Amino acid sequence: MTMLSKMITLKYFQQSCNQGEADKLNVHIVPHTHDDVGWLKTVDQYYYGANSSIAWAGVQYILDTVVQQLSVDPTRRFIYVEVAFFSRWWREQNTEVQQEVKRLVQEGTRGSKTSCRLEFILGGWSMNDEAATHYNAIIDQMTLGLRFLNDTFGPCARPRVAWQIDPFGHSREQASLFAQMGFDGLFFGRLDYQDKETREMKLKMEEIWRGSQSLHHPEADLFTGCFYAVLTQLWLYGNLKVACVINTCVFLMKIKHTKSHTQRVNENGYNPPAGFCFDAYCKDDPIMDDPTLEDNNVKQKVDDFISAAHKQAKHFRTNHIMMTMGSDFQYSNAKAWFKNLDKLMKYVNSAVRYKNCFFLWSVKSDDFFPYADAPHQFWTGYFTSRPGLKGYVRESNKYLQVCNQLETVAHLRSGMKSNLRTSKSNVLRAAMGVAQHHDAVSGTSKQHVANDYAKHKLKSGGRHCKDVISSVITEGSSNLTFCDYMNITLCDFTQNSNRFTAVVYNPLARAVSKYIRIPVDCTPSYIFVVIELLVPVSEATESVRRNRGNANCELVFLAKLPALGYNSFSSSATNKRLFTPKGKVVNPSDDITISNEFYSVNFNRNSGLMDSIVNIESGIKIPVHQDMLWYNGSMGNNASKQQSGAYIFRPNSSTPFHCSNDGKVKLSVLTGSNPLVQEVYQKFSDWAYQVVRLYKGIKHIEVEWTVGPIPVKDQWGKEVISRYETNIDSNGYFYTDANGREVLERKKNYRPTWKLNQTEPVAGNYYPVNSRIYIRDAHVQLTVLTDRSQGGSSLSSGALELMVHRRLLGEDSKGVAEPLNETGQFGDGLITRGKHWLLLDTVTSSAKQHRLLGEEAFMSPLVMFGGATPPALVQQSFIVNPLPPNIHLLTLATTNSGELLVRLEHQFAKHDDDVLSQPVTVSLKGLIKNFEVKIVDELLLGGNALKNTINRLQWQSSERI
Amino acid sequence: MTMLSKMITLKYFQQSCNQGEADKLNVHIVPHTHDDVGWLKTVDQYYYGANSSIAWAGVQYILDTVVQQLSVDPTRRFIYVEVAFFSRWWREQNTEVQQEVKRLVQEGTRGSKTSCRLEFILGGWSMNDEAATHYNAIIDQMTLGLRFLNDTFGPCARPRVAWQIDPFGHSREQASLFAQMGFDGLFFGRLDYQDKETREMKLKMEEIWRGSQSLHHPEADLFTGCFYAVLTQLWLYGNLKVACVINTCVFLMKIKHTKSHTQRVNENGYNPPAGFCFDAYCKDDPIMDDPTLEDNNVKQKVDDFISAAHKQAKHFRTNHIMMTMGSDFQYSNAKAWFKNLDKLMKYVNSAVRYKNCFFLWSVKSDDFFPYADAPHQFWTGYFTSRPGLKGYVRESNKYLQVCNQLETVAHLRSGMKSNLRTSKSNVLRAAMGVAQHHDAVSGTSKQHVANDYAKHKLKSGGRHCKDVISSVITEGSSNLTFCDYMNITLCDFTQNSNRFTAVVYNPLARAVSKYIRIPVDCTPSYIFVVIELLVPVSEATESVRRNRGNANCELVFLAKLPALGYNSFSSSATNKRLFTPKGKVVNPSDDITISNEFYSVNFNRNSGLMDSIVNIESGIKIPVHQDMLWYNGSMGNNASKQQSGAYIFRPNSSTPFHCSNDGKVKLSVLTGSNPLVQEVYQKFSDWAYQVVRLYKGIKHIEVEWTVGPIPVKDQWGKEVISRYETNIDSNGYFYTDANGREVLERKKNYRPTWKLNQTEPVAGNYYPVNSRIYIRDAHVQLTVLTDRSQGGSSLSSGALELMVHRRLLGEDSKGVAEPLNETGQFGDGLITRGKHWLLLDTVTSSAKQHRLLGEEAFMSPLVMFGGATPPALVQQSFIVNPLPPNIHLLTLATTNSGELLVRLEHQFAKHDDDVLSQPVTVSLKGLIKNFEVKIVDELLLGGNALKNTINRLQWQSSERI
Repeated sequence: MTMLSKMITLKYFQQSCNQGEADKLNVHIVPHTHDDVGWLKTVDQYYYGANSSIAWAGVQYILDTVVQQLSVDPTRRFIYVEVAFFSRWWREQNTEVQQEVKRLVQEGTRGSKTSCRLEFILGGWSMNDEAATHYNAIIDQMTLGLRFLNDTFGPCARPRVAWQIDPFGHSREQASLFAQMGFDGLFFGRLDYQDKETREMKLKMEEIWRGSQSLHHPEADLFTGCFYAVLTQLWLYGNLKVACVINTCVFLMKIKHTKSHTQRVNENGYNPPAGFCFDAYCKDDPIMDDPTLEDNNVKQKVDDFISAAHKQAKHFRTNHIMMTMGSDFQYSNAKAWFKNLDKLMKYVNSAVRYKNCFFLWSVKSDDFFPYADAPHQFWTGYFTSRPGLKGYVRESNKYLQVCNQLETVAHLRSGMKSNLRTSKSNVLRAAMGVAQHHDAVSGTSKQHVANDYAKHKLKSGGRHCKDVISSVITEGSSNLTFCDYMNITLCDFTQNSNRFTAVVYNPLARAVSKYIRIPVDCTPSYIFVVIELLVPVSEATESVRRNRGNANCELVFLAKLPALGYNSFSSSATNKRLFTPKGKVVNPSDDITISNEFYSVNFNRNSGLMDSIVNIESGIKIPVHQDMLWYNGSMGNNASKQQSGAYIFRPNSSTPFHCSNDGKVKLSVLTGSNPLVQEVYQKFSDWAYQVVRLYKGIKHIEVEWTVGPIPVKDQWGKEVISRYETNIDSNGYFYTDANGREVLERKKNYRPTWKLNQTEPVAGNYYPVNSRIYIRDAHVQLTVLTDRSQGGSSLSSGALELMVHRRLLGEDSKGVAEPLNETGQFGDGLITRGKHWLLLDTVTSSAKQHRLLGEEAFMSPLVMFGGATPPALVQQSFIVNPLPPNIHLLTLATTNSGELLVRLEHQFAKHDDDVLSQPVTVSLKGLIKNFEVKIVDELLLGGNALKNTINRLQWQSSERI
Repeated sequence: MTMLSKMITLKYFQQSCNQGEADKLNVHIVPHTHDDVGWLKTVDQYYYGANSSIAWAGVQYILDTVVQQLSVDPTRRFIYVEVAFFSRWWREQNTEVQQEVKRLVQEGTRGSKTSCRLEFILGGWSMNDEAATHYNAIIDQMTLGLRFLNDTFGPCARPRVAWQIDPFGHSREQASLFAQMGFDGLFFGRLDYQDKETREMKLKMEEIWRGSQSLHHPEADLFTGCFYAVLTQLWLYGNLKVACVINTCVFLMKIKHTKSHTQRVNENGYNPPAGFCFDAYCKDDPIMDDPTLEDNNVKQKVDDFISAAHKQAKHFRTNHIMMTMGSDFQYSNAKAWFKNLDKLMKYVNSAVRYKNCFFLWSVKSDDFFPYADAPHQFWTGYFTSRPGLKGYVRESNKYLQVCNQLETVAHLRSGMKSNLRTSKSNVLRAAMGVAQHHDAVSGTSKQHVANDYAKHKLKSGGRHCKDVISSVITEGSSNLTFCDYMNITLCDFTQNSNRFTAVVYNPLARAVSKYIRIPVDCTPSYIFVVIELLVPVSEATESVRRNRGNANCELVFLAKLPALGYNSFSSSATNKRLFTPKGKVVNPSDDITISNEFYSVNFNRNSGLMDSIVNIESGIKIPVHQDMLWYNGSMGNNASKQQSGAYIFRPNSSTPFHCSNDGKVKLSVLTGSNPLVQEVYQKFSDWAYQVVRLYKGIKHIEVEWTVGPIPVKDQWGKEVISRYETNIDSNGYFYTDANGREVLERKKNYRPTWKLNQTEPVAGNYYPVNSRIYIRDAHVQLTVLTDRSQGGSSLSSGALELMVHRRLLGEDSKGVAEPLNETGQFGDGLITRGKHWLLLDTVTSSAKQHRLLGEEAFMSPLVMFGGATPPALVQQSFIVNPLPPNIHLLTLATTNSGELLVRLEHQFAKHDDDVLSQPVTVSLKGLIKNFEVKIVDELLLGGNALKNTINRLQWQSSERI
C-alpha cells in the first residue's frame, strides 16, 4: 500500500484527449450536483431554497458559489446538467457575471487541451423521466435546454455526454434520441441489481447501446456506462472527458467487479467515496491539515482515499478512474467542496502503474426496464402513478405543438417580422420541460409539488398557448373559448349557449375525420350543420362530474378536418330538431352486441363483461374477456418489508380482486338505432365504470374507463387494472412501445441479457406503456393504445393488462415520504377517466393501424368555441401539401431567432409495414403556407448544431470483430 | 402603514458619523456571525467543520465566503469578532487573499466616510466568559487578539466596540477593562429578564456603565447597550457605527419599550427579525422575486420587514435602528445571506419621518449578575461547573505569566537578539485565550470539548512553557522536571529520587516566604538544607490518589524566595534524620484546637466540625461553624420544569443535605509538636474530606477540600458547598470580587437598580467568586479566598457559602445537551481538590491582607525539580528593585516584535486601606535586570494602541446635568 500511495495522480477532469500518465492510476475528479426540477419541493422552491423545513436545497446558491469558486482557481472544474435552473439563474446575473461564466465555459474550446472549466452535461431543460415520457416531449425538453446553451455560449458548450444519473430505469428510445442528438456517451446510475451484478462480472458495465432497430448503425448507437456503487461508495465510471473530446481518441474502459464482502446497497452511484463528501450538508470530516492539531487527519484521509481509489481501480481495465464528487443539490456552498478537493489533490500526489487501454465494447439492444434495486423492489408503480397528471402532461404536449404551429403561422403571416415570436409558447415549453423531469410526469413528487406542476406550471403555460391559438385562428378578431373538462362533459360555454360555433383544429399534417362530443342541453334550440346526435350523459359521467355540470347530453358529430388546419361547425336556430335524443339507457335482457363496419363486440349479460370481438373484415373472431380488477398494494410481508408506493409496485398477492363486489357488472346500452355511434355502459362499482364505443366508419373499439374515488376505508391500498384475456397464443411474449416510438419485445420472467431471479411475479413483469401494448401469435394481434403513460404487462398467455389508477396508504421508502394517496379536490379521492383503443387484426395489418391511430390519438383535434358566427374563414389549412401517412410532422416551430424549426419523422419502424415502412420523399417546398425555403440546414435532433459539423465518437464494438 | 412603508432607508452599517437622513428611519443592517471557540464541538472542529453530526458549523468557510462576498460588492459590510478563528484562517491564506482582506479592512479608514467593509468588533482571542475568568487572563486574551489585529492591519482595524453578545451575565470589571482598552461602547445580549423589562420601561436599555469605583470618571465609563428581543425578533440596539467613529459625534439612542402582546421569550437578541434569517442553515424563505412566480414573496417580505422595523423603531428615540443579521456560526455560505440582504435592501427603499437624537444617558455602577432568562432559570451553576477545568485554567495562567517573564529574561539576556522570542509562549497564550471563552472556563461545553481544552490545548501550551522555564532557569544546562499532581502528593521524580533539588520560582515582584510540600518517601536517605518536616499523607490524599503514588509523606519546608526569581533547595546525603516523621493521625478524644501566632481554630469533637476561630492579634473570637453540604439539583417541579445543569443552578430545596451521612464528621489531627504546621483532618464521607492547616508565621487559615467522586447512584444530582456560619451581623450583605479585581457589594434578594421578584431563594442569590468573598459587620470581617472561580452567596446573616463541586443527572436545556456529569478518568466520578484561605479580622485591616494574600495565591511559587546538583546559580532575582506591596507586576512579556510589554497594577481599591490605597511611584528604570529603558510608550490596556493617540467617545451622562 505504501508503494501504491506514491503512484497516484489525482486531478480534476481536465484534458480532452490526454491519455493521462501511462504508468499511473489517473483519478478524475468530477465535481457535480444533481438538481431535481421539483420533487420534495417545487422547482421554484428548489431554485430559491424556500420551504426549507423539507430540505434546504437552494440551486441559486449552487450556481452563485460554484461560479465564484471556479473563477478564483483556473484548475477547478464543474459540470452542470439542468438548464431549467441554469437559464433562470443566468437571467438574474449582471453582464459582469455573465461574461465570467462565458469565460469559464469557453476556456476549454475543443482546440485547446483543457476541458471547459464549467462544462454542461446532458443540457436538457430537465433530466427527464424515461418511462412515462413521450418522445415528442423528450425531444422538446432537450431542444429547449440545448438550444439555450447554444444560443448563450455557442458550439463549445454543446454537451457531449448525456447524464441520466437518477431516473428509475432507462429506455432504449432515450438512447436512440440521445444518439440522434449527437451525444457521444450516456451515463446513468440506476439499473436492476441483478443486471448490475451480471454486468460487473461480465465486464459489461459499459457497452455500446444500439438504440434503434430501424436506424442504420451507428446512427442510434451510444456508448453507455452505468455507475457502480458499493455502500455509499464505490466506483463510478470511466471517464467523463469524452464531454470535451472531438476526435476519436477513446479511452473509456471496462469495469471488473470483485465481489465485496460488505453488504451491497444498490443505491445511486453518483456519490463520492465514503468519507469524502465535503458538501456543506454532509457529515464527513473535512481535511484538517493544521500540523499542530490533535485532530489532524491528513494521513488518514490520504490513506482512505488511496485505498478507495485502489479498490475502484481493480474494477477497471485501464489506468483511468473517475470519482463523481457531489450529489443531490450539493455545492450550495461550493467553497466547502472545492477547498477540500483542492487539499485532497494536494496531498494525494503520485500514481500507480496500471494497465493500458482496452478498446472493444459489447453491444446491447434492449433496455433497462424494469428497474429493481433489490429483491421485491420493482420501480414499476410510477409507470402509472398520478394518472391525472400523466394525462394532463400528454394533453399539454398537444397544446404546445399546436401553439408552436400557430405561432409559426403568425410569424409567417407577419412576413417573419413578428417580434413576439415564441414569447407566448415559451411558458408552456418551459413548463413541459420541467414536467418531463423524473419526479414530475413520473408521479413521484410530493403532492404539493405535483399540484405546482399541474396547477401553476402547465396551467399557466396552457393559458398563454390558448391565447396564441385563439388569436391566430380568429386572426385577432375574437376570443375562442376552451373547455378543459369536455372529457367529463363539462363546458359552461356550450351548456349555457343558445347557439355557438365549434372550431376544431387538426394538428396533423394529413386530413382526418374525428368524432367530436360537446356537452349540451338535451333539448337545444339549434341544430348543427352536420349529422349530429344527442347522447344522454352516462352514469359514469354523472359520477365524475359531481354535480358540476348541467349538460344532460353530448352532441356527437363527425368532424372532417383539413391537414394542419381547422374547420368550424356552427349551429343554426331551429325550433325543430333533426335528431332528437335517441340514446336511452336500459338494462339488457340478452347478451349485447354492438357493431359497426369493422368490429362487432359482444357482452355477456350475466357477467356484464366483454366477451368476444369480431373483426368483420379479416374474419377474426376470438373470445376477449375484459375485466377491471385491483391489486392490493403490499404493506410489507415476511419476504420483504417493501411497500407499494409512488415508485414501487408490489401487490400483496398476484391475484387481483374484481372491482365489482359481486363479480357482476351492471350492463346497459345506448338503445335505438342512430347513424353515428353504439355504446355499452358498464358499472363495475360506484367507483369503476366503462363505456365501450363503436363509431361509424372508425376502425377501432374505444373503451373509456372512469376510476375513482378508489375506496380506501378498508385500509387497503388499491392498484386498478384493466385486463384482457384472449385465446391468442402469445406464450409470455408481449410488446410495449418505448416513449411512444419504437416497440420492444418483452417476455414474462425473462430478461434478454441476464438470467433473472424473479422475486415479484406481477410487478417484476411490468413495463412502461406510453402509447401501446400488444400480444400476438402467428396470426392474430390484439393491440391496446393508451391516451397516457401506464404500466402494463402480460402475465399469462393471451392476456394483457394495463394499470390505470392507483391509490396507496403505505410509503415505499424511496425518498418521497408520502403515500401516493391522491385525495383530489373533494377530499375523498381522485377520479380519473381515460381511454383505451382496441385493435384486433392480423399481425401483418396491425402496425399500419396502430401507427396511424397512435398518431391521431396523440395529436387529436383541439376543440374550441366561439359565438354563433364562425371565424372569418370557416375552414383553413396551413399546409400546402399534406404529408403522406408515414410521415409525422413532429415539430413545426419558430426559434427565438426567427428561423423555422421543422422535424419530419418517419413514423413506421423498419418492419412494421411492407408499404408504409418504406423510405419516402417529402418536399419541404410549399410545406407551409406563406413560406418559401431559402436555406435548409439539417440539424441534430436537439436542433442545437448542424448535423454535418458533428463527428460523434466512433466506438469499436466487439460485434464487428 | 402604506405611508410608512415609503419612508424607510435600509442600508448596511456604513458611515461613521453620518447622522443618516434626518427625516427617515435609518435601519442599519449589521451582518455578523457568532463563533464559539468551542462548545458543542472543539475549537478545531468548529474551525474546520468537522464532527458535523453534532453541528455542521465550519468557521473556515465563514471567512472564506464572507471575504469573497465582500469583495464582489463594495457596498456590503461584515463584522467579525473572534481572533482565535480569524488569525488561524489568516495564516492559511495566500498573499493575494491577505491583500484583499487588508483592502476590505482598510477601505474605511477613519478619515473616510465609510466604515471598514470588514470590521473587527471586540477583537479578543475569544468572547470571554465574564463570571469565571480572572482579569489577568481577560487582559491577556484581549491583548492577544487586539495586538494581532494591530500587527496585521494597523490602527484602522482597532475594534471600537466590545461585543459580548452571548456570555451569561456581565461583570463590572469587564466593563472597566474594556474602557481601559479604549473601547467606546459595549453591547451584549443576556441580562436578567426582570432587569430587561425594567430597563425597557425606564428607557435604560442603554446607559453609561461606570466600571470602577476607584478610577476617575470617565476612565472606566463605557457606553453599554443590551439587546432587545421579542420572540426571535425584536429590536436590537442603536448603532454599531461607533465602531469606526473617531470624533465625538454621538447619536446612539435610548429605547422605549411598548408592551407586546406576544409571549416574550428572553432569548438572545442578536438574531435577525423573524422571517429574515437567510443563512444556509435557516428555515426562513428567501426573497423570491421572479415576477412570474406563484411563490413570489417580495411584497410579503417587504411588508413584514417594514412592519418589524416599525415595531422596533417604536422603542427608540432616534431615527436610527440596527438589525443584527446573523447568528451562531452563520455565514458559512455567505452568498445566501448577502444575496437576500441585497434584495431586501433593493426592495425596501424609502423611509420614515422620525424623531431626532437624544444625548443624555443614565449611569449604572453595579453589574449584570446573576443572569436569569426566566423565572427559576438562574445561570449561576456555571460559576462552579467543571471545578477541575477552572482550577487548571487558573494554574495555567500562572504558567503563562512565568513563561512570559522568563522569555523576557532570555530575550534581555540575548541582548534582545533572540529570534525565538514568543514562539514558545504563544502556544499557551492562544490556549489560554481559547480557555477564557464563555463555554470553556465557564464549564458549559460538552465533555469532549472540555477534554480538548484541558488535555490538548492547555496541556500542550504548558509543555512549551515548561521548556522555556527550565531552559532559562538552568541557562540551558539541564532540564527541570515539573510535577503537575503535587496537589495530590504525586510526583514520580521526587518519590523515586535518592536525592534531588527543588527549584522554586516566585513570579511576584516582591520577596515571599511560602511553605512548599513535596511528595517523598517517609524514610528518605537525605536531608534538606532547610528546616523540614515529613507529614504522612492524609486519608483524603489516599482517596484522591487512587493508588497512583507511593509517596507516603510530604516533605514540608518554608521557602524564602526573592522577588521575581528563584531559590533552590538541595538535599544532602545522610544516614541520620534531623526530623523524622512526626505527624501521626489519631482520633481526638477532646475538642481539638490548633493554633499558630495569629489564629487559633477550634473543632468540636462530637460534630467533628470547625467551631470557632480566634484572631490572636486582634482578640476577635467568634463562633465559626463550618460544614460541607450538598443541594439536590432539581429535575424540575410544578413551579418550573427547569433542571439544574451546566449553566443553571436550581436546588430542589433550599435546605442542603450534610455530606456526612450521620451528620457527624470523622475528625483527626496531626499529633506531636513540630515547628512548621498544625493540621486537622476531617472526613465527611468517603467522598468529602477537609484538611485545615495553620502554618507557622502564616496569617491565614488554610482549608483544603477534597470532593468526589460525588455519588449519584441514588439518582440525585448533587451540588456541594462549603458553608460558614458565624455571628457576624452581616444582615444579608456580602461582597464578591469581579474577575479577581474590584469588589462589589451584594445583598440577598435584592438588585440595586430594579425591584426583584425572587423565584429562587438560593440560586437567585448566587454570584461569581473569582478570588474572594466576605461578610462583615461594623467590626469583624470573615474573608474566604479561593484558588479558582466558584459560585458563592450569603443566604443568612453571618453565613457565607461557596459551591466547590457539582455533578448532575439532568440537563438544563440551554443548548449543551449533556448532563454535567463528569465521570473522570476512572469512570466513577471526578474528584476535585482545592483550597480556601480564611481571614478573620477587623474590617479595616482585612483588605490589606486579602489583597496581598490574593496576589500570592494567584501567583504562588512554581516548584520544579532537578538532580542533586542545584542550578549554576542557586538563587537569582531578575528584578533590580522589588516593587512595593501595592503594585502588582501584572505582565512582563515580550511582544512578537521584540519590545517589552509591562503592566504595573495598583492592586488596592480606592478605600481598601489607608496606606496601601495611596498612589505610589515606581521607577521603571532598573525594574528588570539587563534592561535599560530607551523609550516608554503608555498603551491602552490591551497593548494595541498608544494611549495618547486615542480619544474615546465622551458620553453625556444624566448625572452631570
